[in-house]
Amino acid sequence: MKESEAKSPDTQDRLLQAAGEVFAQHGFRAATVREISGRAKANVAAVNYHFGDKGALYAAVLKYALTSVIKKYPPDLDITSGASPEERLHAFIRSLLYRILDEGRPAWHGKLMAREIAEPTGALDELVEEAIKPLYEYLTIIVKELMGGAAEKETVRLCAMSIIGQCLYYHHARPVILRLYQLKLGRQEVEGLASHITHFSMGAIKELSKRVSSKTCGEILTDPLTG
Amino acid sequence: MKESEAKSPDTQDRLLQAAGEVFAQHGFRAATVREISGRAKANVAAVNYHFGDKGALYAAVLKYALTSVIKKYPPDLDITSGASPEERLHAFIRSLLYRILDEGRPAWHGKLMAREIAEPTGALDELVEEAIKPLYEYLTIIVKELMGGAAEKETVRLCAMSIIGQCLYYHHARPVILRLYQLKLGRQEVEGLASHITHFSMGAIKELSKRVSSKTCGEILTDPLTG
Repeated sequence: MKESEAKSPDTQDRLLQAAGEVFAQHGFRAATVREISGRAKANVAAVNYHFGDKGALYAAVLKYALTSVIKKYPPDLDITSGASPEERLHAFIRSLLYRILDEGRPAWHGKLMAREIAEPTGALDELVEEAIKPLYEYLTIIVKELMGGAAEKETVRLCAMSIIGQCLYYHHARPVILRLYQLKLGRQEVEGLASHITHFSMGAIKELSKRVSSKTCGEILTDPLTG
Repeated sequence: MKESEAKSPDTQDRLLQAAGEVFAQHGFRAATVREISGRAKANVAAVNYHFGDKGALYAAVLKYALTSVIKKYPPDLDITSGASPEERLHAFIRSLLYRILDEGRPAWHGKLMAREIAEPTGALDELVEEAIKPLYEYLTIIVKELMGGAAEKETVRLCAMSIIGQCLYYHHARPVILRLYQLKLGRQEVEGLASHITHFSMGAIKELSKRVSSKTCGEILTDPLTG
């Protein structure tokens, strides 16, 4: 491989794809730069030039997988700037479902992310800080608006977690759900899921807001079920 | 090892523990019966006697991990036979959270289950059928009661999924949540989470039930947000 070719953006892109596949298959520790550069039809020097070392390549691949799918399905998917909080919640849920259920993505994206979350390396810190936290904070603002001024920070946080949890379940528990009943996940079904999760969460937030106006969050969270 | 010792229940138990650790560490394919029997201070003949082969041993270990934790935290945890549907929902959620967040469990339980769900072997079919489906159906009955007679099957199913998804999130996304904010998961925090998820879901079900009484489920799921 010529030096100019090794340094080209095209080579960089092939390295990212190849690294994604190899890391997803073997995990960070067992993967080798040799296998990755071989699969990318590049050489070890090209990896060093574009990324530095294996750790930096791994971090770059994770970030690439997440940011490219966020770019494809941003949290304000298909809405206009004047959208209501409810419409923004719906868009957030739709985009999250499309991100995790997109069958057009290379299979290694989801697999690599699941692996990193199950057994985190140092790369997860940066990934959460740079790509996940902004999404989470975006949702928090919507929930806060929906709950009105009286909502405590902890209640808003728990509601945001309840919303995200409902969506991610269809990704991480998919093999179980498929065995519980026939689950098709075409465009129409994803839209149906997004509507359900939006309505479920809007109903919950509406009811919780009523409670929040008359009690503190601490009381709600510790009293058993009478509150 | 004497034949009588190889055939003892004690040896069977040691084999289950050892197999759990080895399968969780290496995965089903890479694990060897030799390593398992070595770690259990037993021999390959003991594995054959108690379980048959590696596949049957693996299925037995998965089932053992799940059924022992369900026995410890049954879905009707701490309630009496006359409990209301709301109290039964609370008990279901509490028991599910305790099951997945129990820090007294050997670490391999959660790891093995996560591995099997991420990359299922043939064993998942039986596991879902025998251990997960009954729990899911138990929850479905509670949700149906809470929604009243008008609820369609699909709506009940989606609500059950929303409830389970909220709980499991704290297990599978724990490394991300820990990086988003300080998450302590002692007894008090788990009780707080259980109360939140119960209230969130009760509010949602209450609102959805109002909608169900005036529209069909199909309409709710396909109309965007006006329904």
